[in-house]
Order: sequence, then C-alpha cells, then structure tokens
Amino acid sequence: MYRTHKNGELRIEHVGQEVTLCGWVQTIRDKGFMIWIDLRDRYGITQLMFNQDVSSSELMEAAKSVGREFVVKATGKVIERSSKTDKIPTGDIEVEVTSFEILNASITPPFTIEDESDGGDELRLKYRYLDIRRTPVREKLIFRSKLALETRKYLIGDDFVEVETPFLIKSTPEGARDFVVPSRMNPGQFYALPQSPQTFKQILMVAGMDKYFQIVKCFRDEDLRADRQPEFTQIDCEMAFVTQDDILNTFEGLTKHLFKTTLDVDLGDFPRMNYDEAMSRYGSDKPDTRFGMEFVELTDIAKGKGFPVFDAAEIVVGICAEGQAESYSNKDIKKLTEWMQRPQIGAKGMINVKVNADGTFKSSVDKFFDADALKTWAEKFDAKPGDLLLIMAGETDKTRKQLNELRLEMGNRMELRDPMNFKPLWVLDFPLLEWDEDSNRFHAMHHPFTSPKKADVERMLNGDHETMKALRADAYDLVINGVEIGGGSIRIHDRALQARNFKLLGFTDEEAEDQFGFLMGAFEYGAPPHGGIAFGFDRLCSVMNGVTSIRDFIAFPKNNQGRDTMIDAPSLIHDEQYDELFLKSTAEVAAE
Amino acid sequence: MYRTHKNGELRIEHVGQEVTLCGWVQTIRDKGFMIWIDLRDRYGITQLMFNQDVSSSELMEAAKSVGREFVVKATGKVIERSSKTDKIPTGDIEVEVTSFEILNASITPPFTIEDESDGGDELRLKYRYLDIRRTPVREKLIFRSKLALETRKYLIGDDFVEVETPFLIKSTPEGARDFVVPSRMNPGQFYALPQSPQTFKQILMVAGMDKYFQIVKCFRDEDLRADRQPEFTQIDCEMAFVTQDDILNTFEGLTKHLFKTTLDVDLGDFPRMNYDEAMSRYGSDKPDTRFGMEFVELTDIAKGKGFPVFDAAEIVVGICAEGQAESYSNKDIKKLTEWMQRPQIGAKGMINVKVNADGTFKSSVDKFFDADALKTWAEKFDAKPGDLLLIMAGETDKTRKQLNELRLEMGNRMELRDPMNFKPLWVLDFPLLEWDEDSNRFHAMHHPFTSPKKADVERMLNGDHETMKALRADAYDLVINGVEIGGGSIRIHDRALQARNFKLLGFTDEEAEDQFGFLMGAFEYGAPPHGGIAFGFDRLCSVMNGVTSIRDFIAFPKNNQGRDTMIDAPSLIHDEQYDELFLKSTAEVAAE
Repeated sequence: MYRTHKNGELRIEHVGQEVTLCGWVQTIRDKGFMIWIDLRDRYGITQLMFNQDVSSSELMEAAKSVGREFVVKATGKVIERSSKTDKIPTGDIEVEVTSFEILNASITPPFTIEDESDGGDELRLKYRYLDIRRTPVREKLIFRSKLALETRKYLIGDDFVEVETPFLIKSTPEGARDFVVPSRMNPGQFYALPQSPQTFKQILMVAGMDKYFQIVKCFRDEDLRADRQPEFTQIDCEMAFVTQDDILNTFEGLTKHLFKTTLDVDLGDFPRMNYDEAMSRYGSDKPDTRFGMEFVELTDIAKGKGFPVFDAAEIVVGICAEGQAESYSNKDIKKLTEWMQRPQIGAKGMINVKVNADGTFKSSVDKFFDADALKTWAEKFDAKPGDLLLIMAGETDKTRKQLNELRLEMGNRMELRDPMNFKPLWVLDFPLLEWDEDSNRFHAMHHPFTSPKKADVERMLNGDHETMKALRADAYDLVINGVEIGGGSIRIHDRALQARNFKLLGFTDEEAEDQFGFLMGAFEYGAPPHGGIAFGFDRLCSVMNGVTSIRDFIAFPKNNQGRDTMIDAPSLIHDEQYDELFLKSTAEVAAE
Repeated sequence: MYRTHKNGELRIEHVGQEVTLCGWVQTIRDKGFMIWIDLRDRYGITQLMFNQDVSSSELMEAAKSVGREFVVKATGKVIERSSKTDKIPTGDIEVEVTSFEILNASITPPFTIEDESDGGDELRLKYRYLDIRRTPVREKLIFRSKLALETRKYLIGDDFVEVETPFLIKSTPEGARDFVVPSRMNPGQFYALPQSPQTFKQILMVAGMDKYFQIVKCFRDEDLRADRQPEFTQIDCEMAFVTQDDILNTFEGLTKHLFKTTLDVDLGDFPRMNYDEAMSRYGSDKPDTRFGMEFVELTDIAKGKGFPVFDAAEIVVGICAEGQAESYSNKDIKKLTEWMQRPQIGAKGMINVKVNADGTFKSSVDKFFDADALKTWAEKFDAKPGDLLLIMAGETDKTRKQLNELRLEMGNRMELRDPMNFKPLWVLDFPLLEWDEDSNRFHAMHHPFTSPKKADVERMLNGDHETMKALRADAYDLVINGVEIGGGSIRIHDRALQARNFKLLGFTDEEAEDQFGFLMGAFEYGAPPHGGIAFGFDRLCSVMNGVTSIRDFIAFPKNNQGRDTMIDAPSLIHDEQYDELFLKSTAEVAAE
C-alpha cells in the first residue's frame, strides 16, 4: 500500500495518528535545522515537516535532495501546527516525517505548477500533463465528469436509454466536411466519422427505442476558428411520440437539474421567444437576456423627415444605454463608431442622441430633427435624463445584426454581463429553409431532417418558391447568456415529405437515395412522429463555469492546425499502410 | 400531447379512466362486430378493443384498415377484460377505443416482430430498426445502458474521474493494425483511431488525475473473426500510487456492484490464482471454474512403463469425467477422439480408462498398464466407480491446451456450464514477455507498458536472454466463466526501464522515441507509480446475460466484412475528397 490518506483529508482530529502520504513536491522551505515540504495531489496539499532534533541526518539529507515536482512517499505522525493557516483545509496540521522515499525524480518543468502560471498556449498543449496538474485545469475536467454523470442519471431516470451509435459510418457530402477512414477490407471505399448521430438516432426511434440519448464524440473537418475543435462532444437525444413542448420541458428539466446539482443554482422557468421576436428585439437568434437594452424601432417616426440616411433605410432602430450620456464624449462616440465600422461588423455609421440632465437633447442629427422630434424618440425608448441613444439605419437584417454587436459591446462596457448570472432562453419557430444567393438553392436552417410545422406541411408539399421562404419549423435552440447551448427540431417521419425536402435542398433523387435511402426506407416500416435535441457538451461546461473557451474542458485539445503537439499527431504513415489501404499520397512529403 | 400513458402501465385500478396510447400494431383479431388490436411500444403491450355496438362505422373501418407495424394513436376508456391474461402485466384491462388515428403506415416487414422471429443474420442487420423492435434485442440494449450507468456511478463514487481522451491520435504500428484518418490540414499526414487510450491514461496519471476511467470506443482494423467488431467498447481505468492488490480490490468491488445492481446476483469474493497454476490445473489462462474436472498429472507414474506414447511425452495429464464411464461406448470414445484430432485442436490421440461399477478397470492401454497401475492412476484422480478418465500425452504447453478444449467440451456435454451460474476468477502474475520464434524477438504478453514485478526489475535491466523469459509481471486478468472480461497491469513509470522494454521488444531507439517519446518524456517530470485495467464492455454484457455473442449488445454492428449493410458503409467517396486529402486510390473501383 502506498498511502493511508490523500493530501486533502487530514484535520486536527487526526493529530497523533501515523500516516503515509504520496504526492508531488509543490514547495520546499529549507531552514537548515527544519525543512517543510508542501506535498500535493489531486485532493489537496499537506505540509510535511522535517526536524533535525528528531530526524536522522539521512532523512534530512533526503528531504534536501528533492526538487519541485519530485514524486515522494512520506510516513510520519500528524501534529498540530504552531502557525495554522486557513488557506488550505489541512492548515491546522502538519506531518512530522519519520520515513521518506523518493518514488520518482523530476527535471525542472517548463512552467511552475501554480494556478496562475501556465507558460502560454503552446507550452500548455505540449506539456499538457503538467498543465493538468494545475488546479484550475484539473477542476474543469472534474466538473466535466460530474456534469456527464448528472446528465446520465437524470435522463436514465426519465426512461432514456443510452445507446452507442457507430463511429465508422458513411460519408455524406451534405453539411460540414467529413473525416474519412479508408477501409482495408473494402478496397477503394471509405468510412466517415460521424458529424452527429442524427440518422442513427432517428433510426432508433423507428426501432421503437422511444427515448434515446448519448454523450458522444462528433467530428468535423473544418478550418478551425478559435475555440473550434475537430472532435467535440454532444449530449445527443431523441424522443418518439412527442411535440415540441414535450422536448422543451424534458430538456429544461435536465438543464435545471444540472445547474442545481453541480452549481447549486436555481434557474427558474425558462422564457420562450420565437425566432422573429428574437430578431426584432435583439437582432440575434441567441440573445443575451442578462440585460435589457432591447431594440427600439423608429422607422415610422424617423423616416421621411429629410435625413437621407434614414429615408433610404429599410429600418431605423436603436438601443438606449442607460446613464451613459455623460460618460461618452464626442471622441468616445467617434471611437465607438469606428469600432462599429471595422470590417468584422461593417456598419456605415451610427447616430447618437444624449438625453441631458435638464431634459434637453444633444444629437448627431440636430440638423434634421428638432427637440420635439427627439422627444418622441426618447419616449419610444423610455429614456431618462442621462441616457444615451445609439441608433442605426439600413437594410433590416444587416442593421439588426450590427446593432446586436453594439448592444453586446455596450453590455460589456456597462458590466451587465456577469458570467455567473445565468439567463436561459428557448428560441422557437426557426425558419425551415434559408435561400442562399451564392449557390442559388435553399439550405436547411437546422438540418435536412427537420419538419415544417404541421400547419406548413401542405404549403411545403404544394407551394411555390416564395412560399418555401416563409415555412416555419418546430425547431428550437436553448440559449444561455447569449451562447447557443443546443438545438433541435421535430423531424420528418414521412417518406414523401422527406423526399420533397431533399429536392428543395438541391439533391437529385439518386443522391438522396444513395445517401439517405436507408432512412427513407425505414420510414416505410412504421416510423413514429419524433424529435430531438443536441447540446454542445464542451460549450455547456464552459458557460456553466463562466468562461468563454472550451479548451480547458477538453483533456487533450488540438491546436488551430488540428495538431496534438504533445503526441505529435497527425504524422506520416508507412508505405505498407498505404499499400494495404489501396492508396497513394500526392503530398510532397509522405510515408516514412 | 401524443399519449397519456405507455403501453406497459395500465392496470385494473385505471379502469374508468380515459387514456390515449400510441404504438405499433402487433396483432389484429377481427371478429367483424369486434376488433382487438395489440398495441406495442418499448414498455409493453395494451389491448385495444373496437365494438360496433358503441363505435361508429368510421372507427370500425379505420381499425380494419391497419396492418402489422402501423403506427397508431388511440383514445378510449380503460375497461376490465372479460377474459383476463397473466401473460402480460396489462392483461386485466383493455381500452375501448373512441378515437383512432393512423400516424404512419407500414409495408409488410421482411420478418415478424416477435421474440423468436429474426429472419437470419443478414436480414437482421439490414433491417436493424425492425430487429431492435423485438423484445430480446431491445432488452439487451437497455441492459447495456443500465450497466454503463452503474459502472459510472460506482467509479465516480469512488473518486474516479471520467476523462474523454482523443479519437484522432497517432498511428503506432506496434500491436494490431490501426484505422487511419487522412489529415486535410496536414498534407501527407494521418491520424489514427485509438486501439485503446493506453498512453493517454498513463499521461493522465503523470498529470496527477489519480483515478481515471472512461467507457470508450476503441478501434482495431483486424480481419474479423466471428464475434469481433472493428469498433468495440472498453471500461478503461487507471490509478496512481497503487499496488496490484489495490486495483484488484477496486475492480472486484465494481464487478460485484454491477452483478448486484443489474442481476441481483451476489458474487462473493473472487478467488485468485497465478498464471502458472491456471495453466497446470486447467491448461488455460482463462479457466472456466464453474466446474472441477481439473487436470491431474500422471507423468511420474505413467512414464517409463514401456508405452511409447507416454515414454516420449514431456507430460502425461488427464481429466476425470465423473459418472461418464457407462455413457461412452467405444464408438463414442472414437468419435470424441476424432473431435480432438480435428485441425482446430490437433491432438494426436487420447487414452481412456473406465472405472467400472465393480471397481475393475477397462482402458485403451491395457496392454501396457495392469490393474494395479490403473488403480494408482484412479487414486490420483480420486476417481469413483463409474468415472471415465481421459488422458493425453505430449509436449507440455500443447497438450495442456488440447486437454483444456476437451475439458470444456466434457463440461458442455455434462451440462456443468450453466451460463447464469457466475464464477469469477483473478488470474495473476502473467509472464512479462513471450519469445516469438517466427519474428525471432520478444512480444509483450500484455503490452509494452507493463512493468516487471518489483523483484524482477534488476534482472530485467541486467539479465541475459534466458532471464527475460522467466520475468513475471504484475499483470492480471479477470475471468468469468472461462471468458476474459478484462485485464491490466502495473505500468512502468521509469524512463530507463521503459527504454529497456522497448529495446527487448525490438524497437530501435529512434522508433521508440518517434512513437512513444512523449510518454518517456512525461516520465521525466515526476511520474507516479501507476497501474490500471480495461474491461471489454461488450463482452461483459454478453457474459452477464449468459450468451456468447456480443452482437446483440451493439445497436448497429458491422458484418464480417466490416460493412454496415443498413447504411451501406463503407462507400466510395468523391474525387474532390481525394484531392483535398492529397490522396489517390490504387483500387480498381474508386471515386464516384
């Protein structure tokens, strides 16, 4: 046996006991006649004490010989500390060491193992085993493990069955790019790694599994934007004989359970808002509802007054930044306008109106709008003296999108976005199809298996092109603090409707049959109505911890080039491997 | 809302309630004036009743129009049945239908959805969604889900952390063949899918995670023997600061918990037996201990008596089949001998001795051994009148292996291998290395990261070739009913010892560094002593259910050619995919 206790558990009531501890040397304080070592493991830190009055000189020498991150085993008696600390739970005691063994040495780590010392992204990834020794990283991985267990307990308690779907499936060029896996036994053929278990979970509904879930790895071979990973984890779910409401209620229950059991946070009931409303109130399908500053439209009262920018605009819309009038000098406003004009946002300009303390107005459009006009604006905004109105105009979708960015930025500046203040929201009734000008065809807003709303089925089967743009789906997203946690939909379970959807999405009959024939075939054998949802598990972890990066919730993430720099993958393979797989490389450097 | 109840829950106390049910039409009995439909879902079967005295003719017509596997929704009143059945839990009631809707039709399935009707392996895989509707298949998947949850609850309750390790890792030609994944972003380079998370879990120990587990998919591109799958699932675990005993105790606890919570079976404490003993008592490193019939060696007393077969043999060893003397005619013995002589077993011959009811003997070697000699044999076997001794001779390892097959066969014939009688066993102290004549080098008996026993470390570092053959490892298997459920070992945590092991296994320094440099590097930064184990999860499911095939515990298994015939994967990919991946095919048929 290596140890009697972990390093986080000894307390004053253990005084007098002989214990054996193992762990890593965190710090060493050597006063010559006395030596203290902070011994660390996953569970905490315990102070070891060596005293030349009671310890042999060999023991003192051994203690002096260790360095940071050495792995040691120490036996001794628990004693009360003379100078206690409440910084650590074991701060009342220390262990007077009587026997000491170095289990393994350590060379000097490239960064110290402390909460605030991480040596930068590249070093962290290369020496991930040292990075994970740091408490903030380790605790995130432990949180993830707990969250997964609570998810499973809740869903299985609600009659869900966790079913593992296959990883070696079929490549379907629709959607994102697949990772493919050459098949040695089937020359010239490839498996694909799943982008999601979508078709399999629907097949499980046809199979009568009734309630399915899985916490599962998914794969997308996309160019990696910051904080995207080629492999990521989903809580993937599907239910039969359900309406949208059944699904929302189930996963609202799950989400509440997760917040309660891991964070002790009561979320209350989640507001629900349809897509159109979210777009008009927030300019976003994932509004951050931790703060107000909702959009106010002035189109009716601001157009046709001779201001060319407004007169040419489809929409005039703004936000009211409470109490910010005096905080923003003309120079500040100019800077903010320039921030909005960066290519990432692409606004042309921005109008501002300050409601002065005396009730007068100061605006950048004084030439076109007098005090009375501005007063009607202020009334629309419900603005009070000291408030700052920020107004934009232009094409509706684009303008709303830009104003959404401004709203979020003002929310940040005004410190209205406390990461640990959780505001969930269901966004409902997404459009079924999006018209894409570039490819001159419809794209599925959610995915090709999403059903139109029942009332829209007839219109979808028989309507004209314009009708298709107006179709709404029983599709929904769960948004928390402006972050999309998950989304889902009621699915098509009828072969003819599914075929119609594939056609609208630009599939030929042959392509649809080749790629999804098995699903449409399954629909002929008694497919029940069904629907589901998937949560981004990495994202859920990060939002629940109030951080924006998902990386630290992934034990071994890839860098932006898709590389694991610790193990140095991907890498070259051998000629024999190419031969067995019936492949040749056309890359400049290939094969070992 | 689609339904108020599931089809397994209505009882006599629901009589009088109006309910709505959904499900699949299992059977229809049409008496003209009355129609009964058995409605099925995952939870059970409820009988619907249509009565022309109370139902409209439209309702009667609707009921008559459905066929097997139609998906329907029915509303009606729960009434007491006139003829009750205790075959199903809802057998006391039926639902008098007042409203009826066909939610989806079904064409005639290729096999009926009944416990005993599966249409054969090919059809089952192609129409897996129909196969899973059958109770025996569905229940196996539900069992698997429960077993996984209980595993997680137990291990997380014991401070284990479930950490997801990556699926896109590095190809290492050691061991089985990897599935590889071409990297688009790193031309000419490939990821590999993990055969196990072995190196990552060891890295997590270096990272201080202390107790790790994961229920995880693993991948091996091997030619598929019966009941092997290219993707399979492991309960994968690793612990730091542990001895072999700590690991055995932990996972014995887990196994007991799983049997208790899912089957209500108390396993008791697991016997432990070392490898050498298992080989000499059972001729197998995974003995079936549900029955005795242990090996008895006659070498000392049977050699040198003039029987050439024995005299030339390294070992003479046999089993005693209790009470079988009279059941085996000469013809039966001949058949059994021929069974042993099949190429799969390859025995040269077999000696038999019958202990007659009167205490005399009848043997196939009467010429060489008189009654006194045979009596000493019988005493060694502790044989009683009526017993049959079956004896083999030859080279030790080969003979034991063959006799093991015979023992298992006799166990089957004598019905001593009740699949629901569970006998676990730890097999310990496996050899570290196996000498392979063909490749003229050592192979790792467990894997290249297994540590020799502490007492053998010095001999391993400095010993000669013969010494290496005698090295023992802290390596262990859990065997239940003769099936290997899992195995593990204490690992090397010292760079020099790991380097020595790679050298013995035929790695050049460059190969070792290239493939496992990251692990040996990690060992330099304070690697703790550690060890672990992995259970075959599919296999565990099958053994716990007393069946030999793992296939039905896998929702969507591949066939023996590695194909998923339902979705038709693997399949051809597009030229653009080849181009993006810097690949060309050399197969005769390639690209769509």
